[in-house]
Amino acid sequence: MKLNDKGLLVVISGPSGVGKGTVRKALFDMPNHNLTYSISMTTRKIRPGEKDGREYYFVSKEEFEDRIKKGLFLEHAEFVGNYYGTPLDKVNEQLEEGKEVVLEIEVNGALQVKEKVPDCVMIFIVPPSKQDLYDRLTSRGTESEEIIRQRVEKANKEFKVAPKYDYIVVNDEVSNAADRIMAIIRAEHAKTSRSIHKYYELIGENDENE
Amino acid sequence: MKLNDKGLLVVISGPSGVGKGTVRKALFDMPNHNLTYSISMTTRKIRPGEKDGREYYFVSKEEFEDRIKKGLFLEHAEFVGNYYGTPLDKVNEQLEEGKEVVLEIEVNGALQVKEKVPDCVMIFIVPPSKQDLYDRLTSRGTESEEIIRQRVEKANKEFKVAPKYDYIVVNDEVSNAADRIMAIIRAEHAKTSRSIHKYYELIGENDENE
Repeated sequence: MKLNDKGLLVVISGPSGVGKGTVRKALFDMPNHNLTYSISMTTRKIRPGEKDGREYYFVSKEEFEDRIKKGLFLEHAEFVGNYYGTPLDKVNEQLEEGKEVVLEIEVNGALQVKEKVPDCVMIFIVPPSKQDLYDRLTSRGTESEEIIRQRVEKANKEFKVAPKYDYIVVNDEVSNAADRIMAIIRAEHAKTSRSIHKYYELIGENDENE
Repeated sequence: MKLNDKGLLVVISGPSGVGKGTVRKALFDMPNHNLTYSISMTTRKIRPGEKDGREYYFVSKEEFEDRIKKGLFLEHAEFVGNYYGTPLDKVNEQLEEGKEVVLEIEVNGALQVKEKVPDCVMIFIVPPSKQDLYDRLTSRGTESEEIIRQRVEKANKEFKVAPKYDYIVVNDEVSNAADRIMAIIRAEHAKTSRSIHKYYELIGENDENE
């Protein structure tokens, strides 16, 4: 019996190269969860095999910009000439249905989400050491030294935003990191600030005994 | 890899009759934990078979009152003419060793602990309904109606302190309640406020790469 029925908005973020995607995948592979993705909206062209509303919601640049003006995105960004964003209305629908909506996003997007939804759960994934992250960033092997240098510089900046997050989870082993996130989700549901309203309903239900 | 090595002071409390002791027992029966009890100090006479420092630390009334004056208790109370209290120094030793110290105490004691150790984890155990608690309080069968009436009245007052706690855990099934508390303990270790110092050490350890 959970005292908070509404789903949580869980933001998984962290420095570039830390393995956010792998952790998120391990989380979704766990049994008995109620996690769901949020489908992003984009202005990039639909590709063969893709379906509107499955990989992305595909919209025109005009529509996207109109939605930005109306504040209809949780967060958005431009990437290689195209917009990408998380539609607020879709996320809210899922939360009302009691689903935990997991967003795996870059640091900048995460901080936008925190501003729009202050009661979201902000999780910062970190490597077991800085060296570990540098090793990952350089071992991909296919990129030029200049690109690697830029990435390391970006990661070093991103390391500094940790205090803006609610939790810091070390990605030492992917399964440990996923376990920790699941524990955080369970604990957050039990937080007094989230559960006190339903608790009052619960203890109010037999007022005739007072 | 945990970013917070220090143990947590976990306070399990809730209205009289809610089953705090049963939940605490189920918690300690779980595998792979690092939980420990705190041994209370008392002025009551040692009984045959008891050992000083095992069931209780047995001290004289004078010594106990001297310790109260010196602020050496996390919480204390008088019960049927004897003092009972939680010695602060013993708890701190255990926390420094990385153990999670679990206190299962009455509401009044719990609120004393919160004042002395603001970063303790306050968990309020509640019944699935008020009626459920009334049923428990009356079904013990051995007490007079007057005593039962007093207990119900006490529980009704205790229900109202929930907002002073960090978490509200429903004791619907004992094993569920214990699971939730274990998740809370894991999550609390990952909280940014508890883990940021070690995180800074971690990302500072390779400063030569910056």
